[in-house]
Amino acid sequence: MSCNFGSKIKLTIFGQSHSQAIGCVLDGIPAGIKLDEERIAAFMARRAPGKNAISTARKEADRPHIISGVVNGVTCGAPICAVIENSDTRSGDYDKLRMLPRPAHSDFAAFMKHNGFNDIRGGGNFSGRMTAPLCFAGAVCIQILESKGIHVGAHIASIGLTDDERFDPVNVTKEELDSVKAKNLPVIDDEKGEEMVSAIGKARSEGDSLGGTVECAVIGMPAGIGDPIFDGMENKISSIIFGIPAVKGIEFGSGFDGSRLKGSENNDEFISVNGEIKTKTNNHGGILGGISSGMPVIFRCAFKPTPSIAKEQQTVNIMTGETEALVIGGRHDPCIVQRAVPCVEAAAAVAIADFIL
Amino acid sequence: MSCNFGSKIKLTIFGQSHSQAIGCVLDGIPAGIKLDEERIAAFMARRAPGKNAISTARKEADRPHIISGVVNGVTCGAPICAVIENSDTRSGDYDKLRMLPRPAHSDFAAFMKHNGFNDIRGGGNFSGRMTAPLCFAGAVCIQILESKGIHVGAHIASIGLTDDERFDPVNVTKEELDSVKAKNLPVIDDEKGEEMVSAIGKARSEGDSLGGTVECAVIGMPAGIGDPIFDGMENKISSIIFGIPAVKGIEFGSGFDGSRLKGSENNDEFISVNGEIKTKTNNHGGILGGISSGMPVIFRCAFKPTPSIAKEQQTVNIMTGETEALVIGGRHDPCIVQRAVPCVEAAAAVAIADFIL
Amino acid sequence: MSCNFGSKIKLTIFGQSHSQAIGCVLDGIPAGIKLDEERIAAFMARRAPGKNAISTARKEADRPHIISGVVNGVTCGAPICAVIENSDTRSGDYDKLRMLPRPAHSDFAAFMKHNGFNDIRGGGNFSGRMTAPLCFAGAVCIQILESKGIHVGAHIASIGLTDDERFDPVNVTKEELDSVKAKNLPVIDDEKGEEMVSAIGKARSEGDSLGGTVECAVIGMPAGIGDPIFDGMENKISSIIFGIPAVKGIEFGSGFDGSRLKGSENNDEFISVNGEIKTKTNNHGGILGGISSGMPVIFRCAFKPTPSIAKEQQTVNIMTGETEALVIGGRHDPCIVQRAVPCVEAAAAVAIADFIL
Amino acid sequence: MSCNFGSKIKLTIFGQSHSQAIGCVLDGIPAGIKLDEERIAAFMARRAPGKNAISTARKEADRPHIISGVVNGVTCGAPICAVIENSDTRSGDYDKLRMLPRPAHSDFAAFMKHNGFNDIRGGGNFSGRMTAPLCFAGAVCIQILESKGIHVGAHIASIGLTDDERFDPVNVTKEELDSVKAKNLPVIDDEKGEEMVSAIGKARSEGDSLGGTVECAVIGMPAGIGDPIFDGMENKISSIIFGIPAVKGIEFGSGFDGSRLKGSENNDEFISVNGEIKTKTNNHGGILGGISSGMPVIFRCAFKPTPSIAKEQQTVNIMTGETEALVIGGRHDPCIVQRAVPCVEAAAAVAIADFIL
Repeated sequence: MSCNFGSKIKLTIFGQSHSQAIGCVLDGIPAGIKLDEERIAAFMARRAPGKNAISTARKEADRPHIISGVVNGVTCGAPICAVIENSDTRSGDYDKLRMLPRPAHSDFAAFMKHNGFNDIRGGGNFSGRMTAPLCFAGAVCIQILESKGIHVGAHIASIGLTDDERFDPVNVTKEELDSVKAKNLPVIDDEKGEEMVSAIGKARSEGDSLGGTVECAVIGMPAGIGDPIFDGMENKISSIIFGIPAVKGIEFGSGFDGSRLKGSENNDEFISVNGEIKTKTNNHGGILGGISSGMPVIFRCAFKPTPSIAKEQQTVNIMTGETEALVIGGRHDPCIVQRAVPCVEAAAAVAIADFIL
Repeated sequence: MSCNFGSKIKLTIFGQSHSQAIGCVLDGIPAGIKLDEERIAAFMARRAPGKNAISTARKEADRPHIISGVVNGVTCGAPICAVIENSDTRSGDYDKLRMLPRPAHSDFAAFMKHNGFNDIRGGGNFSGRMTAPLCFAGAVCIQILESKGIHVGAHIASIGLTDDERFDPVNVTKEELDSVKAKNLPVIDDEKGEEMVSAIGKARSEGDSLGGTVECAVIGMPAGIGDPIFDGMENKISSIIFGIPAVKGIEFGSGFDGSRLKGSENNDEFISVNGEIKTKTNNHGGILGGISSGMPVIFRCAFKPTPSIAKEQQTVNIMTGETEALVIGGRHDPCIVQRAVPCVEAAAAVAIADFIL
Repeated sequence: MSCNFGSKIKLTIFGQSHSQAIGCVLDGIPAGIKLDEERIAAFMARRAPGKNAISTARKEADRPHIISGVVNGVTCGAPICAVIENSDTRSGDYDKLRMLPRPAHSDFAAFMKHNGFNDIRGGGNFSGRMTAPLCFAGAVCIQILESKGIHVGAHIASIGLTDDERFDPVNVTKEELDSVKAKNLPVIDDEKGEEMVSAIGKARSEGDSLGGTVECAVIGMPAGIGDPIFDGMENKISSIIFGIPAVKGIEFGSGFDGSRLKGSENNDEFISVNGEIKTKTNNHGGILGGISSGMPVIFRCAFKPTPSIAKEQQTVNIMTGETEALVIGGRHDPCIVQRAVPCVEAAAAVAIADFIL
Repeated sequence: MSCNFGSKIKLTIFGQSHSQAIGCVLDGIPAGIKLDEERIAAFMARRAPGKNAISTARKEADRPHIISGVVNGVTCGAPICAVIENSDTRSGDYDKLRMLPRPAHSDFAAFMKHNGFNDIRGGGNFSGRMTAPLCFAGAVCIQILESKGIHVGAHIASIGLTDDERFDPVNVTKEELDSVKAKNLPVIDDEKGEEMVSAIGKARSEGDSLGGTVECAVIGMPAGIGDPIFDGMENKISSIIFGIPAVKGIEFGSGFDGSRLKGSENNDEFISVNGEIKTKTNNHGGILGGISSGMPVIFRCAFKPTPSIAKEQQTVNIMTGETEALVIGGRHDPCIVQRAVPCVEAAAAVAIADFIL
């Protein structure tokens, strides 16, 4: 099973890329919360493809249709179900793939799990499209978190070999988060953004693709949230972030770089700021012993390059066992990192809401 | 809550560093399995401190005492409870810490969560000591996995600035895993190991500490295990690995490095090997779409440097709000990475068992 | 939260009586199973109202629309989502109820839980209508169970003061189960059925309502399924059966009557039947120590009389605190027991599937 | 698996009747709660055997030994583990039972589940002895509930054919609950109690046994706790109550009797009492739509007669398939209902705590 997340809230995601619809059920949201559906739509638009030159030409309307849990725009305590119709699908593109697994894609693993009965069209429920309902759920949670003074924001930390600046892990503000979100390409340093766009264009023209990293900050977290051992903030955040297709790594605070430092370099000394206990630096990424320290929660996650590339690749025909050359048709993003930014925010918001509610 | 992991098996960990005992309950293990308690003890000895010059001088016997679930050495289907007595504890060392949170340690976050009622002695249930019952559970799961041809092995991938070689992600064998485990310092390249020992000694003499990374391989995994979205192998493995204190990052396959590659470089083409479908390379770390591909599962995790250092650090007295200098007494590992190696194996084994059983 | 059930399978139910739609997500169903949608529709028709004189005049089409998880009639391993549109709703009937809680209905408790934001229309997600998606999920599980030789059937054991015969707990057959299901009123003894219909008609004419009991049998269960303590068959079956609105009791085997017997009367001696170990009697209802014995699983559950009656009742206005007379309009079943029969089968099938899959 | 209960709290029970020890882990209890260990011991003493003529002659000390989670008598937020040593066990009594399953006992079902590897000694983890750790957990939860004004009490509602009075479901007070608990035999009507004792004595002398029912009341419950569908109070309470060995039925409020009433008889009209909305009667047992109404929660559960009787019974030898006469030795309670009373309270307290915390 795959579709459930959470303990205080329960998020259930369903659908396949080319099924009639995809959607989610979000349970555990308190009654009486006025949802701003315009803001939900605006949030989801940040994920939608086709908005600029660097994304796929597919048009996915991605309009979530709330069919339960909300009465006159206000939550009623019943599970919220939102459905997004699938349209503009060209299933024909995928027919030959069942027997010709695409390198680095889920095709082969899914075939082995489901004895070939998996829905191969558009990647089935392994598709990046499944992040649309995740974004819906995240957009709901973000509104609830904001009412508690908690804000979530992310940016492209790198695409290919080009690195953006990083958030200031101690002093990052809501205004900075908002400013990045408002950009067409969510980076801090726009010059780096231009380099990224040009690198993506180059990859596309070569029939290739790029990966990258996304950095996410959660500010306004009260100290004392989470648990040690199996139910800490890192456990839960990582567990949902790996639910975003193509994520292959996650690190909190100084992360892998921090593992190369000495204790005296990586430790964050405590200081008193206006009567509150803070840390001078934030190599711990806002989490100590699985529990929030009150400092910004900071993590980065790594996305592999889009597996579907136009270049010819070698694969093996599952039926015949013969090696075959594969040229993947269809319309695929040469880089999904920019579209993944709101997905990371959404996943983080759902995880945080599961701790806070 | 924090102490439960798993769905097909259930692992519950309890205890604090200085409580009378620590232990675990492992449920879901089939009846009729003969447990080799000598091998369990041998596995746990790899985690135990005090075995060489680079570990803490504390002596922890770490003898697990099985009090239920096993009759005459054979599992009976009832939950297996193992208890490890705490002895050789010097609680006095920790008294002043309640109000003087140690930088990079859980003290402050735990205080905020539990209003100061957390057990501060030895780090309470935030202590690295809690990995002892994890290792017990892992040692049980390892025996079960081995009976299915699945083998788990890990090594120090880096300590401080010194990197070991990496496992060959395509061809790593059980013999190589066993060979590394048998070493006093579990590295592939013993010269690098000597550099590491010397770096740890230097850190200790400076009153400082080092972090590092551990690489883990799971071989013999059948293809088709796992799920997309929330219950994939990466989700579950990361969720338990972050249960090991001091872990701040995890990456699968080519991970963060892979995010800088092109699709044509990172994609793993399929090939036919003796009638079986394999991949030529293994940048995907044996997991595609959350599901095992049949290739070795490969991941690395990052450990921050030991927070408890002898050097003077600055902290804030929670009671008075005043800044104070802190010099941490007690006996602490200048580097826990070598002891973390079996913990990573244990966590991986528990996660894999939760998929396989 | 309320909408999730199961561990090996996960059933998520969403919707309110008058929301745009209701539905469910059923995860964990293996890929490659051909679903007979005609049989699903036929099963759900047994629950639908309006089919005879003793039910409400409302027409609920109850046509489940599968929007994911099934490709060309065959499960693909992705979660199965089915949606049932709500139509023929007259929300105006319920407006005054928010402040005038109906006796024995969920209105008051829901108001207290949700601070008045609960969806009062048609009972919101407390409505008996929520059993429609349960029946969909049950109908899917029933097909899977049948392929394993397990059959589920129920009948009206009593309505008001009229008792039907009981299933023979030792020898009940699939043919008997099928024969009862085929009847317009699912009873064993049709004369008793006529008495029931007449009692319901009398209650309706008096503006009153009746309750009753349903008996369910599961045959073909292999021995050895289930667990002691918290995850036994009785625990899981009861936990889902109480998810059917109006259920107030459940008993297995000889149940409450058995508590009045001596051990020598209630104990079921073992006998050998064609080389298989069976019990001579079946007071244990097919479950010993939480685990199936291989005998038919037998349980009965009690439904309270429909709370919504036409007779004037006394209630308290939540807003004013004043006592008021309440006359409930709308169209309500004077007895829901006959419609509950397939709901009980569905719930049992989902619980059994959660053990078997 | 069988050993986990709860979502906000997690109770894990381990051990077998004749393993070295039994015990439990209780997670999710807030830090800073002072536990009265004397009261815990007193509570558990109510369950212990051997205190009067109608119980088994076995002596079980049942002293829980808290080995984690409590520092100086105060909870520290870490999981509470309590262990109870098993002593005074005579495992020899059970040896022949592995192949000769006792009627109405778990032996046969456990054999089938565990391929004969189940721990047969004393019933293994199917033993009524497993309620000792449940009582420990309940005793902890009771103290927490009491601090919130919630009180749990139970009494013997019947033994064999003798019925006690019932609690007044509207007006039952803490004093009445306490008064019943203080009695040697927890009944309301002591004359009925004497009849019960005499009936038990008679059963014992005949080598037979009796069952009975226990009624439980929870008073002080705030309105608005619980959920509809799968996570209501009835679902959760029944799910844990069936964790007590020998329970075969449960009913809330008017229960099975209520199913024979008309709506106008069973409905509980709302009234205003000192500005609070109450119900005039309490046939709903304090639960409407799965949610507490603020009225006392009332339920009864049915215990089958003790399966282990001295009278000769017929069974089948699993090895040979031959019918054999069985005479059960060992020391067994002719009636466990009086000892089950605190177990029911404990289970109810754990379930309620799981909603309240």
